Amino acid sequence: MQTSATLTSLRWDPVLARVEVIDQTLLPHRLQWQPLETLQSFCHAISSMQVRGAPLIGITAAFGLALELARDASDQNLEAAVAALLQTRPTAVNLGWALQQVRQAVAGLEQGARAGRALQRALELRAQDIRHCARIGEHGLELLRALPTQGPLQVMTHCNAGWLATIEWGTALAPVYKAQRAGMPVHVWVSETRPRNQGASLTAWELQRAGVPYTLVADNSCGQLLRAGAVDCVLVGSDRTAANGDVCNKVGTYLKALAAAANGVPFYVALPESTIDWGCPDGGHIPIEERSGEEVLTMSGFDSSERHSAVRLGPAGSRALNPAFDITPAALVTALVTEHGISEASEQGLARLRRQIDSSSPM
Amino acid sequence: MQTSATLTSLRWDPVLARVEVIDQTLLPHRLQWQPLETLQSFCHAISSMQVRGAPLIGITAAFGLALELARDASDQNLEAAVAALLQTRPTAVNLGWALQQVRQAVAGLEQGARAGRALQRALELRAQDIRHCARIGEHGLELLRALPTQGPLQVMTHCNAGWLATIEWGTALAPVYKAQRAGMPVHVWVSETRPRNQGASLTAWELQRAGVPYTLVADNSCGQLLRAGAVDCVLVGSDRTAANGDVCNKVGTYLKALAAAANGVPFYVALPESTIDWGCPDGGHIPIEERSGEEVLTMSGFDSSERHSAVRLGPAGSRALNPAFDITPAALVTALVTEHGISEASEQGLARLRRQIDSSSPM
Repeated sequence: MQTSATLTSLRWDPVLARVEVIDQTLLPHRLQWQPLETLQSFCHAISSMQVRGAPLIGITAAFGLALELARDASDQNLEAAVAALLQTRPTAVNLGWALQQVRQAVAGLEQGARAGRALQRALELRAQDIRHCARIGEHGLELLRALPTQGPLQVMTHCNAGWLATIEWGTALAPVYKAQRAGMPVHVWVSETRPRNQGASLTAWELQRAGVPYTLVADNSCGQLLRAGAVDCVLVGSDRTAANGDVCNKVGTYLKALAAAANGVPFYVALPESTIDWGCPDGGHIPIEERSGEEVLTMSGFDSSERHSAVRLGPAGSRALNPAFDITPAALVTALVTEHGISEASEQGLARLRRQIDSSSPM
Repeated sequence: MQTSATLTSLRWDPVLARVEVIDQTLLPHRLQWQPLETLQSFCHAISSMQVRGAPLIGITAAFGLALELARDASDQNLEAAVAALLQTRPTAVNLGWALQQVRQAVAGLEQGARAGRALQRALELRAQDIRHCARIGEHGLELLRALPTQGPLQVMTHCNAGWLATIEWGTALAPVYKAQRAGMPVHVWVSETRPRNQGASLTAWELQRAGVPYTLVADNSCGQLLRAGAVDCVLVGSDRTAANGDVCNKVGTYLKALAAAANGVPFYVALPESTIDWGCPDGGHIPIEERSGEEVLTMSGFDSSERHSAVRLGPAGSRALNPAFDITPAALVTALVTEHGISEASEQGLARLRRQIDSSSPM
């Protein structure tokens, strides 16, 4: 069993000059490292969701661009590669941001110097993500330590916001891994997270790899568990947080927040600063992505022959609606956990965080 | 398309002297009527969940006992048949109640008169269930008519409490079918109801048969839909209701009740009087059945070859917890809908209902 600090979703091999990622479409059934060398293979890995999770997507794309520049560092090829990588997941914010970081790093350099600098920048971005997630973990650990609990700490999470979604540690799961390393007994309630089952297929798998005890439950059971006193805190990630503290996250998060509030259980949201949308006044301004109803009508997994199989659930001809995210109002959020520390989920709390960031920035 | 009044889950064929039930294990993929003639076939139909839903189980068992008495009406065989039928689903309250009704009806009769009287009693129980469900539908329709709405009435339900769980009409879905017959445009949000998917496999199917428009959603989406104003009321059934109005129903009901209350949407519970547990003071006294974790770890449906297939969802070696029900506190329930009328979900409201029932009873 690996210790949590060495669990990673993306490896850089300096000898073979290539990246290796876990093919997440095969999880939880098979661990397979996928080597990525060509631009095409990077694009395919992102678009087919072999890699997913905003931070991981961005850093994978940065490496893809760097390796492509080693092949052809011309201006024309730089722009073509950026365009090709951007196209893979047009809605992921981190993708554009990471590509921009690499492009800016090589801007003005001679072609011969570009690939080296681009690779250096990709490695920096990777290191920065690890650092930020580790800090989120340390700040979150302070919150966990403050919880009154008998026996193992009972944490409930939703979807996957662990090291599979970032490089190491994760966001929502970083405090859990930090607790494990600090010797605190901790157990995680993993909700399967229909319709795409990221809880069952990714979170359960990565906790198992890390040796953290967990129990899988249907999303429907989470209210009952919270009511029964089986949960000390809920800890989730965020795809986008508005300036007033409203949190957009994987659909189903809001129901957990309601049940946590109704039963006096703290509800924490862990997020890197980069996911705060300072220009967005509240959750009502965040568009909710609607995905294909097929994700609701069918379910895929491994069958008894260990082959990928999909089963149909509803009657033929059914219509299904599939909003991918929901909004949790700030009032239901006990605290936000960022790499800069703990923040109140409110306009005032986020304004204070902003001032803190601005005053500590080297710019 | 059948009109809702003729949709039934169980037919009595007086010519062939046999019962036919829909094999619900094949839904929503295939409609197959299963003839039941022997005691063995009745027992198998109940234990294998070809029929499910407390009222339907009870009435199926009553017919099974009556047909077995036609073969051998001795005291010894009567008791053996009751015991065999009771064993099929030891926890279903209606099963024992219905068998007791038939046993009492034949008590003291000569053997030659027993089978005829038993069949008559089974037919009476069937007719009574239809009548009670129809009344629940009419009382519920009054509530639906009072809702301010623009466009089709938007009803959200959970699990299956329709005519597949009873004989005709259903409980939670009875007001919807009554609205349809009254010419009110109505649309139902069907939540898939993990882990056993009764929403996707049964409710969606029976609404489709009845020609009621519906949309299937993941359980996780229901909070978002309620928050977005897409729902005029939530209407669910109940497995057991305590004397203070706390409602035990399929797991996930409580989360919908919380979201309905948070967004000012009425939350109605439709139930026959027989499911009120007058001796149970509150929801804390209702034991929550825990079912096998396998229901969470695997999902079954039809694969692309139209064959039943099960896929595994979590990693091998995962532990899953699977509480089948949850408790919705009375304070979150806007009203109870019974065959006797509308009742407040409170100790006072149920005490009034009890007095009303006692004073109108012919006993």
